[in-house]
Amino acid sequence: MTATLMRAEIGEQPAALARLLTGRAPVDDVAARIRAAAPRFVLLAARGTSDHAALYAKYLIETTLGLPCGLASTSVYTAYDRQPDLHGVLWIAVSQSGGSPDLVESTERARAGGALTLSVTNTGDSPLGRASELRIDILAGPERSVAATKTYTSSLLALWLLVRAWAELDIQPADRLVEDVEAALQADVDDVASRYRFVDKLVTTSRGYAYPTAREAALKLMETCYLSAHAYSGADLLHGPLAMVDQDRPVIAVVPEGPGGRALEPVLAALEERGADICLVAPGTNAHAAPARIVLPTGMDEQLAPIVQIVPLQRLACAMAVSRGFNPDQPRGLKKVTQTF
Amino acid sequence: MTATLMRAEIGEQPAALARLLTGRAPVDDVAARIRAAAPRFVLLAARGTSDHAALYAKYLIETTLGLPCGLASTSVYTAYDRQPDLHGVLWIAVSQSGGSPDLVESTERARAGGALTLSVTNTGDSPLGRASELRIDILAGPERSVAATKTYTSSLLALWLLVRAWAELDIQPADRLVEDVEAALQADVDDVASRYRFVDKLVTTSRGYAYPTAREAALKLMETCYLSAHAYSGADLLHGPLAMVDQDRPVIAVVPEGPGGRALEPVLAALEERGADICLVAPGTNAHAAPARIVLPTGMDEQLAPIVQIVPLQRLACAMAVSRGFNPDQPRGLKKVTQTF
Repeated sequence: MTATLMRAEIGEQPAALARLLTGRAPVDDVAARIRAAAPRFVLLAARGTSDHAALYAKYLIETTLGLPCGLASTSVYTAYDRQPDLHGVLWIAVSQSGGSPDLVESTERARAGGALTLSVTNTGDSPLGRASELRIDILAGPERSVAATKTYTSSLLALWLLVRAWAELDIQPADRLVEDVEAALQADVDDVASRYRFVDKLVTTSRGYAYPTAREAALKLMETCYLSAHAYSGADLLHGPLAMVDQDRPVIAVVPEGPGGRALEPVLAALEERGADICLVAPGTNAHAAPARIVLPTGMDEQLAPIVQIVPLQRLACAMAVSRGFNPDQPRGLKKVTQTF
Repeated sequence: MTATLMRAEIGEQPAALARLLTGRAPVDDVAARIRAAAPRFVLLAARGTSDHAALYAKYLIETTLGLPCGLASTSVYTAYDRQPDLHGVLWIAVSQSGGSPDLVESTERARAGGALTLSVTNTGDSPLGRASELRIDILAGPERSVAATKTYTSSLLALWLLVRAWAELDIQPADRLVEDVEAALQADVDDVASRYRFVDKLVTTSRGYAYPTAREAALKLMETCYLSAHAYSGADLLHGPLAMVDQDRPVIAVVPEGPGGRALEPVLAALEERGADICLVAPGTNAHAAPARIVLPTGMDEQLAPIVQIVPLQRLACAMAVSRGFNPDQPRGLKKVTQTF
């Protein structure tokens, strides 16, 4: 159980991100097309890991562009066979493979309904790419592990680049991104992996731009370690699920610098009051006391931080799977391209 | 541990729903105001149980009215202090108490940003009601159990009535609703409660209109029994989380009649292939073989079925909590009005 593929692909992330930064010209062209179309509303369609990239894009678009944004329910288009009026809407479908039939069908429907359609995939040519009017290739290179890692971070960066170009902002905040991801590849996760060796239920939480990190970390842990990992936005956690947090269910809290991190403070306080065993995934400057910790670089741009935060959590999932005797390259019951209709 | 409040309030649902059906004239007035404003997009804001009502409304609006619709991220307005341009947008905030500060603040922001704002609450007068331009009172009567039950089904009905009136459709499909809920109050849940006495992890799943039922059932089980309940749309379940389903983790599958139920067939097949122990929550006509079953009335309208489906699942949560020695009226660590900012 050496996790050859997953471990290698996690390590390829600095190179993949650097490739996309250098090769971003097509993203700028897509952004110019979108700006000219001046959409009033954005719908994002995705599943699994790509759904977390879509959620990240939702926050980016709402905060940077001030446009209302929603996650599409593809069953409206497929199971219920409806054709909403999508004039004035930008439809963004995110899929590493570009092959999921329900995404292809709902994108075709969206286009027929008047939406400007864009696909964000890791494949130059795919059914989803052919269904959409605009295409972005995230340039992550072939991904063979079933657990997606580098396609996730490259999707985040592609969406960040798109929003920056759309808003006519420069990409200076990304100057240190590759370096920060390199640092995150060196962050110590072994102590946490050891502490969690016998955990079978845990909770992940964050807020704002970093909430997708909590979601994606939970999915990676479920896919590779088969444990029960619940992700909640800090605010939702206080509305009900807090009741199930106790001393036997650790909480991984991703606490960025900036407003998202500050909004988590009352959540951390409530968790501590309940005696939760917290693992803090935060820059070294975070002064919060916690029994476990994964240290991230300090001074990161809060919008870009999710591309860095997930890296040690991918490594944690990989390490925990191996220590349990599972092969994270081949999770039971999963295939690389999921066929949902 | 008698669960007096929760059990009583579950039993009040037929009367609460009948009261709202009779007293629906104000909902029609709100619908007329919305129709006159002709919004192009809808954003829904809610947390916890009300978030599941919002998700239900999203499906209704997209399929019945053909309008694109999204769930709002309130942190955009609160933590990140942004003011999106919401002209042409209908903003619907759902909250039984009408008191959650982040919903009040984000609704004020939405209104200042040009949205037509509507609150759906169980309180004639509340901070959220005062913040919004339009108001619907769901008329469920005082709810004292921390675990929301009757306010959930009354919220669903209020949103269904709103969408019907907005689309200028009659409410004939609701003619048998109260009777179906009465029948659901009699459905046998004791065998399943007994079978699940020692379960500490489970999965709930459904698709389409009934997906919010799966989400709400999982939340009720977490709030009252402190077990780990994961809700997935059938399609998402196949993208990763399927790996964690095994013989030790039962799956509650809510399978309606109609397209949503048919879209679940490949999901049920995949679960069976993995050896999952399935509890089927479905009309008596469903021929699927499963080791556990909760029988619902047959011939229900698929849009209204969620109001009926959740009732035996509320009763299951209540029964399971009592059998474990917990008091579902007072889940540990929770208050009736959650203060999130």
